[in-house]
Amino acid sequence: MKIKEEERIDDLDNEGLKIIQKKNGFCFGMDSILLSNFAKGMKKNSILLDLGSGTGILSILLSKKSECKKIYAVEIQQEMAEMINRSIKMNHLEEKICVINEDIRNLLTHFEKQSVDVIVTNPPYKKIKTGIVNENKNKLVSRHEIEGNLEDFINITYQLLKDHGELYMVHRPERLADIIELLRRYKIEPKNIRFVYPRINRGSNLVLIRAVKNGKEFLKIEEPLIIYKENGEYTEELIEIYK
Amino acid sequence: MKIKEEERIDDLDNEGLKIIQKKNGFCFGMDSILLSNFAKGMKKNSILLDLGSGTGILSILLSKKSECKKIYAVEIQQEMAEMINRSIKMNHLEEKICVINEDIRNLLTHFEKQSVDVIVTNPPYKKIKTGIVNENKNKLVSRHEIEGNLEDFINITYQLLKDHGELYMVHRPERLADIIELLRRYKIEPKNIRFVYPRINRGSNLVLIRAVKNGKEFLKIEEPLIIYKENGEYTEELIEIYK
Repeated sequence: MKIKEEERIDDLDNEGLKIIQKKNGFCFGMDSILLSNFAKGMKKNSILLDLGSGTGILSILLSKKSECKKIYAVEIQQEMAEMINRSIKMNHLEEKICVINEDIRNLLTHFEKQSVDVIVTNPPYKKIKTGIVNENKNKLVSRHEIEGNLEDFINITYQLLKDHGELYMVHRPERLADIIELLRRYKIEPKNIRFVYPRINRGSNLVLIRAVKNGKEFLKIEEPLIIYKENGEYTEELIEIYK
Repeated sequence: MKIKEEERIDDLDNEGLKIIQKKNGFCFGMDSILLSNFAKGMKKNSILLDLGSGTGILSILLSKKSECKKIYAVEIQQEMAEMINRSIKMNHLEEKICVINEDIRNLLTHFEKQSVDVIVTNPPYKKIKTGIVNENKNKLVSRHEIEGNLEDFINITYQLLKDHGELYMVHRPERLADIIELLRRYKIEPKNIRFVYPRINRGSNLVLIRAVKNGKEFLKIEEPLIIYKENGEYTEELIEIYK
């Protein structure tokens, strides 16, 4: 497999999944791994959309971890979309994953309304004009709400999901009020939320959310997901997730 | 101190605070203890309102734990309000706590708009027509949204709080989406949320919320509050809180 000089290939699991990433661009992180684990129990034979695919990590992992039927990885950056396509070829997943190089706001030109079973997304976390913005263009689009903000992601999710279709999202806890307010506005009911805490005595730094379009009101806050034990080692659960 | 036949006196701490409760009525629980601990860091000399005071537990504990100036304990049930008054006398807190036997929805007949620094509340958790309702009237009003629902509590909080005044609330996590949606609607921004987990491997069963009227958007999810260790003993933090 040919890669470009500014790229590298990383192993994703013990079963041979690999991914191409840019050495100095946006690389996948623990958030995508945790979201793929959180979403893997989705219904069999689901049509799955990965909104804002980045390196393609979520689509590639869920092609193996879940029993979905077909995955559409949507990525606005042409250079990243092309890189995902090479990662797909490298893993022989051409039949399972299809890359769509498109702005998420234009997806109704590709899909019928209410045609998708499950949407997964690791959207840009930061509002425009917050945080450090002197990054390269790649990282900027992946991290900040430059091409599509949270409301765009939730709006298109509402339009594309079937009745009672599922949304799985990872985000920063500081945006939780925004997320819940928007989900309610678009009739996508939050059903399960799991907070990730780096240590048992630290505030949460990631939140995993499962929401159901037109779902009944009842939210479960799942058990805490702790990353490190007090001695600095990974917890048993984290080791299990990374296997 | 005279108590009625259907009542009992319980110790609240090692410093002599006591409370009168009904043997078969609504008794205070761990939720009130945890909320008093969560709220105790409020600004000095605050004018404090305890909405839906019940047995008066929150007001009595905060009169000692916090450095507030004056507490108004608002309780709609006449019989309960009278019982709180006897608990106040028993603890010699007449100068600090004042009981108002009133529907929270009528509080603007007692207070000016925007005159209160801090509101604490342990409101009824359950929507009408959910859960078991064959309880006595006391328990029913304390547990179900019969006299004032969540929106009533948040609406009156908005009207009574000063600009940047604080709300401290304990509730059930399954209502979190309702709470956040309503707080946002009434411009009371959720700033700190702490989830209580009975054990490290269980879902949350209580949530503590601090919100600020007209506050800036940025939510912190605090470290998890765990009740029991794996061996079934209370955690160190819980023992500390109950001291």
